[in-house]
Amino acid sequence: MLVKVGGKKRWFTASWLDGSTVKMIDQRLLPFRFKIVSMKNHRDTANAIKNMTIRGAGSIGAAAGFACAQAVLECRKKEGWLGYVKEGFERIANTRPTAHDLFFAIERIKTAIKGKNLREAKISAVKEAIKIGKEYQRNGKLIGMHGARLLKSSSMVLTHCNAGWLALHDWGSALAPIYFAKRLHRKIFVFVDETRPRMQGAKLTAWELANEGIEHTIIADNAAGFFMQKGEIDLCIVGADRIAINGDVANKIGTYEKAVLAKENGIPFYIAAPTSTFDFRCKNGKQIRIEERPADEVLYISGWQKRPCNIRVAPLASAAKNPAFDVTPARYIKGIITEHGIVKPKKSAIKKLKNIR
Amino acid sequence: MLVKVGGKKRWFTASWLDGSTVKMIDQRLLPFRFKIVSMKNHRDTANAIKNMTIRGAGSIGAAAGFACAQAVLECRKKEGWLGYVKEGFERIANTRPTAHDLFFAIERIKTAIKGKNLREAKISAVKEAIKIGKEYQRNGKLIGMHGARLLKSSSMVLTHCNAGWLALHDWGSALAPIYFAKRLHRKIFVFVDETRPRMQGAKLTAWELANEGIEHTIIADNAAGFFMQKGEIDLCIVGADRIAINGDVANKIGTYEKAVLAKENGIPFYIAAPTSTFDFRCKNGKQIRIEERPADEVLYISGWQKRPCNIRVAPLASAAKNPAFDVTPARYIKGIITEHGIVKPKKSAIKKLKNIR
Repeated sequence: MLVKVGGKKRWFTASWLDGSTVKMIDQRLLPFRFKIVSMKNHRDTANAIKNMTIRGAGSIGAAAGFACAQAVLECRKKEGWLGYVKEGFERIANTRPTAHDLFFAIERIKTAIKGKNLREAKISAVKEAIKIGKEYQRNGKLIGMHGARLLKSSSMVLTHCNAGWLALHDWGSALAPIYFAKRLHRKIFVFVDETRPRMQGAKLTAWELANEGIEHTIIADNAAGFFMQKGEIDLCIVGADRIAINGDVANKIGTYEKAVLAKENGIPFYIAAPTSTFDFRCKNGKQIRIEERPADEVLYISGWQKRPCNIRVAPLASAAKNPAFDVTPARYIKGIITEHGIVKPKKSAIKKLKNIR
Repeated sequence: MLVKVGGKKRWFTASWLDGSTVKMIDQRLLPFRFKIVSMKNHRDTANAIKNMTIRGAGSIGAAAGFACAQAVLECRKKEGWLGYVKEGFERIANTRPTAHDLFFAIERIKTAIKGKNLREAKISAVKEAIKIGKEYQRNGKLIGMHGARLLKSSSMVLTHCNAGWLALHDWGSALAPIYFAKRLHRKIFVFVDETRPRMQGAKLTAWELANEGIEHTIIADNAAGFFMQKGEIDLCIVGADRIAINGDVANKIGTYEKAVLAKENGIPFYIAAPTSTFDFRCKNGKQIRIEERPADEVLYISGWQKRPCNIRVAPLASAAKNPAFDVTPARYIKGIITEHGIVKPKKSAIKKLKNIR
């Protein structure tokens, strides 16, 4: 997307391949600093995924594709290189267990290099990684186009976490319909859940919306129910990290809460995700492994006071639990906005997507 | 309650009258510093209520009683003193619109000084203010006794915000049953919602529980639904800021969300509050005025990094909305734990409380 940096506008994706280096926007510094960081090898890129320098389902997928290409490019000897690559792919796979796009991208590169010699494999891996990135760009825009049908001028939308272009390489999943509607001159108002513990709503979604000139307000996650109850929210759109074949959706912690509240208040709740987020081997939400992240993400909060700060917000004697995702059962979901259109969260509809892809 | 400060244990209430000065624990500095601050006159005490140096339904009530006594003590001239007092009471009433205990305490002092001359009024106001404080202490303990019936060893309790002794002058409302159960040697585990925006859960409830040696874990507000869904929470107990005669309850923002989720997951949801929190003139939740607090409480977070810090967590270009309370309709509430026992959130049951009081 176009970003205003230092008075100029420039097009960015969340990450990109520059020779054998992966460059990316350091999302941990936003909205306070816009900084591009370089990952020289697949280990650095895997680490950047793990420590959330880059995050969001599609952006993890695209960066994982680039990381896999890096692992292949790093091979020097014609013999035994597959062992190195396999080890590298495993390292990349072990970064974020819940995100299905991570495994989707790794599988794509694996298939692309299958049966090839090292020279061919290097070319194929790079080509495939770039192709994956371009697919995210196209799919984000298509999700935007399909999802915009749900939005009219003056629509009030609630979103949770960040499922914008920073999270899907380009365009976004949950935010893409809002960006598309904006281009159709519809005025949308967005309620932005701040999304504790990592505040991706307050930090990334609000920054994206401000950059696009879209009216919004940040609210504490606790206030979403209040505004639903008051009738100020017309619909909810959120992203996804993994979707089971029965329509159960794993997404950022808190999504389940908002979905239950939306149902209770008669507000349609939509998921937006490309088909790469669907795990066609996963029968239902119970089979999804939920990533547990460090307690310090709850006990400390990072922000800005003249410089980046990380402050303690709890007693030293207290511990915290930090599940990063939850599962929203399909029955709370009105529809899933994909690049092929809006589908019902049902096995019959989702199976059809598998065949299109 | 007994507090370990500097290696020694000392009994504290949230505030107390020392001559004509109101002393209180500065709750904005907890859990990082335990500091007693002095409010020399009723203006200072009113300001301390408004800026949340002291907060929590009952603690606001007790401090408001002391502030009213201060306003009377400040009168020097035998003529026209009632005008000064009336103005002072209004100043105190204008600090926190949702908290019913504030108005309860002001009414009590008003009644106590009615028809008296200044000398008599000073004595009566101080006596009545001290009596109000003692009632909170007694009621907190009684709430603990009645509520402890709901808790057995190994009970897993979710609580939201802080409704401990810091919030009810002594003992607490929602935490009192847990403290009482502890004295009966029952092992309780508490899930503590951190309670954005002001983090009273992470900062105050966790601190209270650690001080009492009660096992607990802090969670992001977004994670409460996750743990309910997993079957890890047996019951919820929260406090209240105002209860309507039909059983609708205004409490800290986010309470409504947790109550809906509890119902959805078949988990009993209890309110704990003394009868002073019941507004017998309020027909239902729609009549409760919800305090809107400054956006900066959402856009900034305060905590500790070697010293007290207040850091920005959102883009400078973004705004926030900050409703401080929400209303939980009676249908989500299993029971209200009062000093007279556990009552149903129904008009018939609540009307009986009015007559006891």
